[in-house]
Amino acid sequence: MINAKRLLQRLDELSQIGRNHETGGINRFSFTKEEQQAIDLVTEYMKEAGMQVNVDGIGNIVGSYGDAQETVMLGSHIDTVPDGGKFDGALGVLAAIEVVQTLHEQQVPLHKKVEVTAFKDEEGTRFGFGLIGSRAMAGLLKPEQLQKTDAANIAIEEAARQFGLSPFPLEKLKREDIKAYLELHIEQGKVLEKEDLPVGVVTGIAAPLWLEVTVNGISEHAGATPMHIRHDALTAASEMILAVEQCFQKKDDSVGTVGKLQVEPNGVNVIPGKVTFTIDIRDIDEHTIREIEQEVEQQVNDIAARRHVTAAIVELQRAKPAKADESLQQQFAASIEKQGIRPYALVSGAGHDAMNIAAAAPVAMLFVRSKDGISHNPLEYSSDEDIVIAANVLYDTVLEISGKKD
Amino acid sequence: MINAKRLLQRLDELSQIGRNHETGGINRFSFTKEEQQAIDLVTEYMKEAGMQVNVDGIGNIVGSYGDAQETVMLGSHIDTVPDGGKFDGALGVLAAIEVVQTLHEQQVPLHKKVEVTAFKDEEGTRFGFGLIGSRAMAGLLKPEQLQKTDAANIAIEEAARQFGLSPFPLEKLKREDIKAYLELHIEQGKVLEKEDLPVGVVTGIAAPLWLEVTVNGISEHAGATPMHIRHDALTAASEMILAVEQCFQKKDDSVGTVGKLQVEPNGVNVIPGKVTFTIDIRDIDEHTIREIEQEVEQQVNDIAARRHVTAAIVELQRAKPAKADESLQQQFAASIEKQGIRPYALVSGAGHDAMNIAAAAPVAMLFVRSKDGISHNPLEYSSDEDIVIAANVLYDTVLEISGKKD
Repeated sequence: MINAKRLLQRLDELSQIGRNHETGGINRFSFTKEEQQAIDLVTEYMKEAGMQVNVDGIGNIVGSYGDAQETVMLGSHIDTVPDGGKFDGALGVLAAIEVVQTLHEQQVPLHKKVEVTAFKDEEGTRFGFGLIGSRAMAGLLKPEQLQKTDAANIAIEEAARQFGLSPFPLEKLKREDIKAYLELHIEQGKVLEKEDLPVGVVTGIAAPLWLEVTVNGISEHAGATPMHIRHDALTAASEMILAVEQCFQKKDDSVGTVGKLQVEPNGVNVIPGKVTFTIDIRDIDEHTIREIEQEVEQQVNDIAARRHVTAAIVELQRAKPAKADESLQQQFAASIEKQGIRPYALVSGAGHDAMNIAAAAPVAMLFVRSKDGISHNPLEYSSDEDIVIAANVLYDTVLEISGKKD
Repeated sequence: MINAKRLLQRLDELSQIGRNHETGGINRFSFTKEEQQAIDLVTEYMKEAGMQVNVDGIGNIVGSYGDAQETVMLGSHIDTVPDGGKFDGALGVLAAIEVVQTLHEQQVPLHKKVEVTAFKDEEGTRFGFGLIGSRAMAGLLKPEQLQKTDAANIAIEEAARQFGLSPFPLEKLKREDIKAYLELHIEQGKVLEKEDLPVGVVTGIAAPLWLEVTVNGISEHAGATPMHIRHDALTAASEMILAVEQCFQKKDDSVGTVGKLQVEPNGVNVIPGKVTFTIDIRDIDEHTIREIEQEVEQQVNDIAARRHVTAAIVELQRAKPAKADESLQQQFAASIEKQGIRPYALVSGAGHDAMNIAAAAPVAMLFVRSKDGISHNPLEYSSDEDIVIAANVLYDTVLEISGKKD
């Protein structure tokens, strides 16, 4: 059992760094004074937990416990969005440290090294480019990406150097010795709340495919154009939006969203001549995303043809989803059951460092219930009880996969 | 038979007044130098046609032919929208003058007085308030409406006085002696073009009811919110838009348009939390409009309930539709048939002076085919052939209802 009081106290203590006392929000951005304070505090915790602490060339803080050759890595991040909450990222790092400290205090013999990483800049707040540390560790970071700049035109590379870091060569940052990566994180959604469960096992991290559909009809007078001779771009778009929604009816884990839509000319008495809308498609499986994409395209084209409008689809962004490792998921589920809780599997719709690490190692994530699904907001909240359950599940899982069996 | 060459020449001549030579558009606004030039020219034509010309207190130009007690009035307007075309309004006034001039030249004995009115400010360009002359003549103009101002803060009343007019008392402007009002106008739509017909008989002038629907759902993360727990305001609105369209499927003459729509927060990866859209409902029958309105409301509420969002409907504007007089429609149809043309009935979706005059007298309108349905634009076009056919139909109808039978 982990030390609940210590974990919750550290969570409070870390949440004071970068705190905006007017909004209650937390601001800790890459390569800033606030971030350095947080790094110093986390380093201190890691040392208290019996770890040796190293910082790699991009600024990942890595605490190591034990000297076995194979590594089980735990981690998350300590940077925030503007006026962020106290749980997103920080909880994962502190729970991981708590797990190691408990192993250390109990002198549990391990046959794997256990590491805790606080990844550099997950949120991407300062440079509009996130998951930097996990990209680097998975060998996914590209040199040109370090030239991305902040609002003051300072590049990531320059900011890193000012912090005494030497990111190049990037190959040196890549880790190939990780046998398992486990991340505890708040859900940032309402699924666990609806299921009335404190924790859940993540089956994978859904990556978004972003499409933009432009529907061109004919803009005509709303009064002088009978219904049957219209080329209304908005009624066509409405049918497409419902068809997109329909594409996800038979799919449990996929989600599809039309979030952004614009009508032209957008006059009360003018038939819409042009509608542009986006589609955000997410699944943890690339094949499923492609299947849905094809179905969406087919529907959009069919509807356009039937309604005598044209439709063009452009890809705005395509990210790579990551599946969680089956046996690690099973271990999380077994540890949850030991707590007398029904194991529940859910998808992560948001990106996490685990998504990148999946390119270099088997990964799994444990989600903690979020009140009202609120995140990236001072109102972000997970209860003490849920946090403690989650940390104990993580502890048990680490013990199971790293502990020495007699 | 009317004098085709004279009518077409006058149409050309009048179109030179207020012409913007860069765009080809015509600019003749209320109480301006250009409008006065147009009034002077039209007055000259009326006199050439054998009419006595009077101007009423609001600036309606009325030419009178004959001294019978009962009046058949023909008319339209000579003001334009910014960069308007040469046919909208002007054609109706000039064709009416041509009809009278032909009656005059042929010394046709009449048992009704025939009047031609060029109505003051139909388009509403200058004061954002149109149909002023026909409102006044029908007794619909309200004193406070004359206080509406232009961009330079000049009120309608003040502008009228500067033009030497005395609008008050408004009761004096009201006409109660009109036995029939006939207006020839371009269609400003594509119906006649699609039917391959030069002219059509208007069954009524559809008035718009404008509603605004606000759908409130819950704005959540597109990735972290499974499909079945969403409260998506845009998918709900899409279903409503298609339901609105469906309400008009069984109605021949009604039209319904969702022209304006706004999504909040309008982000690619955010489920829409709020959608606001307008509905423009038009029919020539108030009862039908109310029926449709109720059906639309029912659908919107049902969809909102089923999709776990809320919907509120607000009325933005409600205008009174006008039906054309049955026997005048039949006379137009008979005159069209005499030309060997299939009589075709259609609705006017746009407002016209006839809509107001309908409050004071039986009215009917004759539409002339518009190329591509374009209007309020320098590209507005009706062919010489169609214009001549329309003018001859108007001539025949006036003859039938005003001519002395032996």
